[in-house]
Amino acid sequence: MKHEIDLKHYQIRTDLAIDTINEKTKGIKVKTTTLDDIKITNVVIEPEGSNIIKKKEGNYITIEFKDVTDTHNKEKVREVFSNELKKLLEICGIKEDDSCLIIGLGNAKSTPDALGPLSINNVLVTNHLFEYGDVIDGYRRTFAITPGVMGQTGIETSNIIISVIKEIRPHFIIVIDALASQSIERVNRTIQMTDTGIQPGSGVGNSRKEISKDVLNVPVIAIGVPTVVDAVTIVSDTFNYMYQHFSYMKEKINDPANKLKTNINYLNETIDVKTEDKESLMGMVGNLKEEEIKQLIFEVLTPIGYNLMVTPKEIDFIVDKLSDVIGNGIDYALHKNIVK
Amino acid sequence: MKHEIDLKHYQIRTDLAIDTINEKTKGIKVKTTTLDDIKITNVVIEPEGSNIIKKKEGNYITIEFKDVTDTHNKEKVREVFSNELKKLLEICGIKEDDSCLIIGLGNAKSTPDALGPLSINNVLVTNHLFEYGDVIDGYRRTFAITPGVMGQTGIETSNIIISVIKEIRPHFIIVIDALASQSIERVNRTIQMTDTGIQPGSGVGNSRKEISKDVLNVPVIAIGVPTVVDAVTIVSDTFNYMYQHFSYMKEKINDPANKLKTNINYLNETIDVKTEDKESLMGMVGNLKEEEIKQLIFEVLTPIGYNLMVTPKEIDFIVDKLSDVIGNGIDYALHKNIVK
Amino acid sequence: MKHEIDLKHYQIRTDLAIDTINEKTKGIKVKTTTLDDIKITNVVIEPEGSNIIKKKEGNYITIEFKDVTDTHNKEKVREVFSNELKKLLEICGIKEDDSCLIIGLGNAKSTPDALGPLSINNVLVTNHLFEYGDVIDGYRRTFAITPGVMGQTGIETSNIIISVIKEIRPHFIIVIDALASQSIERVNRTIQMTDTGIQPGSGVGNSRKEISKDVLNVPVIAIGVPTVVDAVTIVSDTFNYMYQHFSYMKEKINDPANKLKTNINYLNETIDVKTEDKESLMGMVGNLKEEEIKQLIFEVLTPIGYNLMVTPKEIDFIVDKLSDVIGNGIDYALHKNIVK
Amino acid sequence: MKHEIDLKHYQIRTDLAIDTINEKTKGIKVKTTTLDDIKITNVVIEPEGSNIIKKKEGNYITIEFKDVTDTHNKEKVREVFSNELKKLLEICGIKEDDSCLIIGLGNAKSTPDALGPLSINNVLVTNHLFEYGDVIDGYRRTFAITPGVMGQTGIETSNIIISVIKEIRPHFIIVIDALASQSIERVNRTIQMTDTGIQPGSGVGNSRKEISKDVLNVPVIAIGVPTVVDAVTIVSDTFNYMYQHFSYMKEKINDPANKLKTNINYLNETIDVKTEDKESLMGMVGNLKEEEIKQLIFEVLTPIGYNLMVTPKEIDFIVDKLSDVIGNGIDYALHKNIVK
Repeated sequence: MKHEIDLKHYQIRTDLAIDTINEKTKGIKVKTTTLDDIKITNVVIEPEGSNIIKKKEGNYITIEFKDVTDTHNKEKVREVFSNELKKLLEICGIKEDDSCLIIGLGNAKSTPDALGPLSINNVLVTNHLFEYGDVIDGYRRTFAITPGVMGQTGIETSNIIISVIKEIRPHFIIVIDALASQSIERVNRTIQMTDTGIQPGSGVGNSRKEISKDVLNVPVIAIGVPTVVDAVTIVSDTFNYMYQHFSYMKEKINDPANKLKTNINYLNETIDVKTEDKESLMGMVGNLKEEEIKQLIFEVLTPIGYNLMVTPKEIDFIVDKLSDVIGNGIDYALHKNIVK
Repeated sequence: MKHEIDLKHYQIRTDLAIDTINEKTKGIKVKTTTLDDIKITNVVIEPEGSNIIKKKEGNYITIEFKDVTDTHNKEKVREVFSNELKKLLEICGIKEDDSCLIIGLGNAKSTPDALGPLSINNVLVTNHLFEYGDVIDGYRRTFAITPGVMGQTGIETSNIIISVIKEIRPHFIIVIDALASQSIERVNRTIQMTDTGIQPGSGVGNSRKEISKDVLNVPVIAIGVPTVVDAVTIVSDTFNYMYQHFSYMKEKINDPANKLKTNINYLNETIDVKTEDKESLMGMVGNLKEEEIKQLIFEVLTPIGYNLMVTPKEIDFIVDKLSDVIGNGIDYALHKNIVK
Repeated sequence: MKHEIDLKHYQIRTDLAIDTINEKTKGIKVKTTTLDDIKITNVVIEPEGSNIIKKKEGNYITIEFKDVTDTHNKEKVREVFSNELKKLLEICGIKEDDSCLIIGLGNAKSTPDALGPLSINNVLVTNHLFEYGDVIDGYRRTFAITPGVMGQTGIETSNIIISVIKEIRPHFIIVIDALASQSIERVNRTIQMTDTGIQPGSGVGNSRKEISKDVLNVPVIAIGVPTVVDAVTIVSDTFNYMYQHFSYMKEKINDPANKLKTNINYLNETIDVKTEDKESLMGMVGNLKEEEIKQLIFEVLTPIGYNLMVTPKEIDFIVDKLSDVIGNGIDYALHKNIVK
Repeated sequence: MKHEIDLKHYQIRTDLAIDTINEKTKGIKVKTTTLDDIKITNVVIEPEGSNIIKKKEGNYITIEFKDVTDTHNKEKVREVFSNELKKLLEICGIKEDDSCLIIGLGNAKSTPDALGPLSINNVLVTNHLFEYGDVIDGYRRTFAITPGVMGQTGIETSNIIISVIKEIRPHFIIVIDALASQSIERVNRTIQMTDTGIQPGSGVGNSRKEISKDVLNVPVIAIGVPTVVDAVTIVSDTFNYMYQHFSYMKEKINDPANKLKTNINYLNETIDVKTEDKESLMGMVGNLKEEEIKQLIFEVLTPIGYNLMVTPKEIDFIVDKLSDVIGNGIDYALHKNIVK
């Protein structure tokens, strides 16, 4: 029966390491810290682990938080982000006066893709001040570029970046990019940092030239925030919520204790979804594995020809706040004498 | 079993008349014209039809098109839109020198909701020129306001509008708004005009005071373009596509003629989806009616607390073009002496 | 000879009280405080003084500062501004839970005129939250509007404002506007607050309806920042600098002590410009009084038909920072429970 | 007496060839055409002329017009600009399918300096479409970049440009930049094109690396529009207007024929300003040559430390229209199959 649906291999790309890592794998070390409601996950992928999960070896730091539109919370996230970035700079062996090129990837004219360029607006650029002899102690040389996207420039973004790097020869590179997520709940609520570099555009289905230490011979730190999920993700996530909702309802609805409750929320409970529940709720589809479901949804949506993305209604406002966090957070991590 | 899921009444609001109209209903007249690949649907709802479908009596004109990011096509859409608006002005008894207040509803800071304010940027405002004695023949007096949304002003938008109308007493009103759609395929590809007025915010779940001739005693023409679908729509649309895809595959996949075809596209065929197919594919869910499915998805997504919207990736670019079409189209319809 | 030039009455408008006030006048009280390099001038014009200098009686507070593009300095200016505004609210008898309408005057599409609308973007709007029952203690009801300018709306701005006020009936009003200055040195370096209200557009030569307690029966606090000087001011200021420069040079240039100095700066010295120096430097023009010179420049520039303004090159950047100061400063003054 | 003022050499930079060219000079050929109220000046500077006026040999085309905020006039200016650019491409030996890199110089965040980046937004970029195999006949390969300014990137703009050029190796280059003007009347009313290249930032006092055929070995066409004059220019222009006004008044004011006239306008008359008039009006200053006056104003304004620019109030609106003219004009000149 399954064969009636042609399940050729399909895998949604995502740029969040946390989505693909299993901490029980050999050669993968995971450490989790919590600070109020901010969760920090440090993942180190060693060569052995790298081979197993097909992800580059290196450090992956993920910061998960609730809401940066709250001023107080935003400030806390900025601080955590800044501290984690500082630690990663140390791990990478960056020295206090090493010069840094900061690159804001993405399309400034498309809100969810504008995180990189907007963050660059908030970043302190100092190199030209050094040239003029203006800079006080405690600041390093920084450069910043927003190379645009291929649709605007006609040029492979990596090519612009690599030619600028050759010209200015920075000691290390920070790249900021908006990512796609494989989970609705992570959108705009996660910052990922890694020293393994980035492939511009890899989240949207194009495999481009890599920006990484392997290619450029200087450390490359990539900072990403998922700002969109695609339509396939929203549908398959909804399937999962439906299973949980169904299992929860089946169990609770006849419990007299619930008769007087309003707003029963299945998300607050740990729900064990049984296979037969899936099947009775969703028939044949209930029998498919998550990846097969995604493959099916992908096939079904492709002929509509729509390049759909799912974002919260407040995306313009949120991206604005996130670019504050990223831009200022980088400044505090890079320059030791910045006073708050 | 079905009762385990509490199906309290839920109905997604939509502002597109075309989504709810059945031309066989008594008291509803439908006329369709095609111009190249632009389709114009004129619907007149008479009192009898109004009672049956619970939609206000009046004229509803819908223009469906492919793509306004193509310059040539954009110009054709603008022309069709302008002509239809001119006809509607005549139907409403608007005279050549009647003054017009043009209102751009929505939040200029949120891309898919910015259609109204952006269109206003492209609209010719003349009233103050008349005051200065500057205006040449063939132009009427126009005013324009962008009242913002309640989240920006703290004020019910209708209240701002009504108080300004009392002050300037225009002969008629044009209101521009971004709408929600009940269908992915209509997003950014449809313009609707009606002389029945508008309820600001009605597409996003709030029932606000009406802007209409009934309330204001002057003709009100509402122009709307669907720029978003909500997450419920994308999931339920996907269910429908899955049924079609499944039925199509079941029938075609073993047909030897298809063995060599790539990109088999179920959308090009008329597919008769059988109830038993729905059930075997989707189990219990396959037994639900469309409205029940939407209700279920709505309930399941609500606890995630996310205010999700689905838009194409190019939304910033498309809304920009659409606001050109609307703004310039209004100018050509309102002022007889504008030379192209 | 003088009569060959027709000096009909011409007076450049300015909205800065500090430009026209002489503290020796009867019925005018002036108090100056200094906080680091921020200077605060409190002027009270009593009825007697009001008659003499033809300026409305009331309170005028002027804050003069160096530079808000420096983060540290910006924060200090914000604090001083916030405190002075709080005091003015008390003087006006505003109670803790009185509701406030905040109005951002000006054209958001023209950088130096965008201060009002940009400040509104940074202001906390709460009224709708009260309606939803969401607001915590220590916040008052606030509303905000950006009524645009006549060139955008076709409507007298005062009329929009007055009709909205009638509708929502706030307890008091704060109006924010960009001003013209009569002095290059004040541009972007001064905030003025007054409880005497404002005439929208009065700085640019149009006399419009007043927004004031006299007209509206509720307290109106006007906050203004000069962001432009006009071409007449830049030329007449330059004349004055030329006199000072000339007198200074005549005296100093032959002083052997100056032989080794570079960058001799006449601005650091108190220079007594003699009438005969003016005359020998500038001939007939040197005999004219300041107002006559301005009249002459105005006449001479009028036929060029250019609507010129003078701003610093960094105006976009500075207005952005100033709108942060104004927007956040208002929040801190209005809501007692905002935590920094 | 004059020597008391130290007149060290000072020369305001300007990027408009037309401001410095004298058609009687040997080795300079000037041809002027008029089309309605658009004036086109073609200047060829030959080696001999180049030596005399210290300006690079090559072609300089200047288009002077009245107003691009008028839709009809804007379209005419675009057409003239497009045709002149086409001719210049021919003169430079550009072939139909030569690839072109279009560079928008300037700071997108500062309105009068944003002409370059804004024009790039309106320019058709095709190279990536060729890569995908999408392009139809009659289009050439185009690339576009907006390298930002040194204050944003920390990098010498020329260095970014040169490294990108090395990477993509276009057949020729078009550079768009906002210029400073030495005359109020030219601001926003002139387009200059030249095949002699450009020095990024040369109009604002910095001498940077040249972008020219000499350096890059491919043709470089520079397109510039003056969008600002500096404060020195506005003051010295006013001095000249004062002389004219004074001479005119002296002659006309006692003429009985003028008694009934209002709005006497000295600009409509050819006025012969006598040296003694200058002296009696302006004393010592009236004796200075234009360059000496500019030097004096420059010295006098320098200590104020202000980076002042003079622009019309409508600059945001005008730059928007001008970038349409430049962007679309380039498209029509570059791609033969674009249909209007």
